[in-house]
Amino acid sequence: MVSDLFAWKPVGVAARADGPRLGCLATPHGRVETPAFIPVGTKATVKGVLPETLREIGVQMVLANTYHLALRPGADVVRSLGGLHAMMAWDGPILTDSGSFQVFSLAALSEVTDDGVVFRSHIDGAEITLTPESSVAVQNDLGADIIMALDVCPPYPCPREEVAEAVRLTLAWARRCRAAHQRKDQALWAIVQGGVEGDLRRECAEHLVEMDFPGYAIGGVSVGEGHEHLRNVVGATAPLLPADRPRYLMGVGELRDVVAAVGLGVDLFDCVLPTRNGRNASAYTADGMIRLRNERFRTDSRPIEDGCDCPACRNFSRGTVRHLFVAGEMLGPVLVSMHNLRFYTRLFGCLRGWIRDDRFEAETQALLDRYYRNH
Amino acid sequence: MVSDLFAWKPVGVAARADGPRLGCLATPHGRVETPAFIPVGTKATVKGVLPETLREIGVQMVLANTYHLALRPGADVVRSLGGLHAMMAWDGPILTDSGSFQVFSLAALSEVTDDGVVFRSHIDGAEITLTPESSVAVQNDLGADIIMALDVCPPYPCPREEVAEAVRLTLAWARRCRAAHQRKDQALWAIVQGGVEGDLRRECAEHLVEMDFPGYAIGGVSVGEGHEHLRNVVGATAPLLPADRPRYLMGVGELRDVVAAVGLGVDLFDCVLPTRNGRNASAYTADGMIRLRNERFRTDSRPIEDGCDCPACRNFSRGTVRHLFVAGEMLGPVLVSMHNLRFYTRLFGCLRGWIRDDRFEAETQALLDRYYRNH
Repeated sequence: MVSDLFAWKPVGVAARADGPRLGCLATPHGRVETPAFIPVGTKATVKGVLPETLREIGVQMVLANTYHLALRPGADVVRSLGGLHAMMAWDGPILTDSGSFQVFSLAALSEVTDDGVVFRSHIDGAEITLTPESSVAVQNDLGADIIMALDVCPPYPCPREEVAEAVRLTLAWARRCRAAHQRKDQALWAIVQGGVEGDLRRECAEHLVEMDFPGYAIGGVSVGEGHEHLRNVVGATAPLLPADRPRYLMGVGELRDVVAAVGLGVDLFDCVLPTRNGRNASAYTADGMIRLRNERFRTDSRPIEDGCDCPACRNFSRGTVRHLFVAGEMLGPVLVSMHNLRFYTRLFGCLRGWIRDDRFEAETQALLDRYYRNH
Repeated sequence: MVSDLFAWKPVGVAARADGPRLGCLATPHGRVETPAFIPVGTKATVKGVLPETLREIGVQMVLANTYHLALRPGADVVRSLGGLHAMMAWDGPILTDSGSFQVFSLAALSEVTDDGVVFRSHIDGAEITLTPESSVAVQNDLGADIIMALDVCPPYPCPREEVAEAVRLTLAWARRCRAAHQRKDQALWAIVQGGVEGDLRRECAEHLVEMDFPGYAIGGVSVGEGHEHLRNVVGATAPLLPADRPRYLMGVGELRDVVAAVGLGVDLFDCVLPTRNGRNASAYTADGMIRLRNERFRTDSRPIEDGCDCPACRNFSRGTVRHLFVAGEMLGPVLVSMHNLRFYTRLFGCLRGWIRDDRFEAETQALLDRYYRNH
């Protein structure tokens, strides 16, 4: 049973276990129409973008990183400042990850035991232990609507025995997270691991489903395995998850991956790409990415993308944006981040419309053909 | 005679040559209620702040720097992109300086001759000649509403002979700028130089007034001479300028200087301080500057300044702003820049109200007492 506070309900048709699906996720801070993209606000800010602008460009939900916030400013400080919603000045839904992905990718890892993971902070080298219980406690302090169970994310490629061990720990820790989590105004979701090993993914998914979480993530993808593996993992895992629970594909934002995963029944995605690319002057358009530092945009008075209604395209030319980057001005990264986020919210609006109108296959094929034509 | 396009008209009372005055400056891009503060958008952007936000926080007019824009992206590029109003997405009044201040402060100066000034770009070392004619031509391309005549700004302290020579060149160049300036939709204002030498200031002002410019700046202050000298220079110069023309004190933004100069009849001010301080986490409040990186703000959930209606104070706590700076997040500088600009627009709104209500002396004394109490 899932509390109505956090129910995901299909829109239009009955919930389906595979194939593209339209839905609506309830949270204590409002609803999220799915499929939806969740911009990343690593350190309690979507870099350079004001929350009112996020709302204006159609963002429904944001993510913040437990690892980063636990190190700085500290979960106690976040709690003192009123929690993440107050700090981010964002009254919509927020999701926090468990911290494990950054522990495995950013920190100097000391040891993984049954109890948890010991690592050294990438900021000051301090030794820190993260357990299922402490991850939940930190996420309780941060106060997001959706929190994630501590998992072990193996790299790619990875020996099968290590993937199996990651699944064993992920299952044990999910159970302990569930026992530790008490706040009723936060939902705890579990993460399916298993690398590219189909039977391990199945084992992990089936045991997590037995534990009856209100939502499920597919983790451990977008770690270098490539599009075909990603598609296979999602295609094999999604149908194992309950049809009436939200599915979240962690860290995925490349267009062909998003479209494939939505087609396979995924509802939620988070990714740093739109903002990271934006800070590097790479702008998304329907015809592919353009690199706005390029000399050819010097006197280009067109907007970044014709027809786009974002604050950058409504007001600034490519030539101006190029100048701002070349001159080292903050407004350059700010503007292209806004544009890229708007590109994603428009894309997901299209995906939802195409599912609703039963045109998903044809329209997404045309979209991908056009986007990747020049690649 | 001044074209109605660029008239400054007193509000409430007849124009006065000295003492605080209330007025309204017309430009082709709208009116400016004076006294007014002009934020600096050096490279065609007020660093980190969107133009719609500038408008929201009460900014009436912005400044851009001819020197910086002539070097990068180049006046021809600015013209190709539709001029400064289009580039900055700012449909309000814009002012450009002549470029000379940056030539004397930033560039490797090669030579000053009667013809103009030869310098090396601080970006790539290229040798460039700036003459009265080329300064006007560049400013014509940039397309601001108000443009400034090329002047020579001596440092402080400076031998009297050099100040006299600066005045001689400033006068000769003002005459040549006037002859070179053709666009009727831009007003050319002249700059009074003369250092702290009263008789040289008088000579410069009187000759410029004979040339009949539609507006006058007092330049060469805020170069290290200190408050007393600044007050003396402004007090001696302002009464020499026509009562019915706008007066602009260049580069001045320190509160005691602004208040003194408004009291002596100055209408316009530009300064980088609110944005530069903002980027360094120094926030203006009625009780003086606070440095938001300070540990004591770690869990401070109050806004930067109680009662402030800026986008930062409406949404974010001091603790959050401190976290954003410590974490190296763009939003920190953005938020404090917004707050500081709003502090200035609120301050100037107060100054105008106090002049209108004949309470200028008492209210500004109280304001300065409070602001500097802890200094």
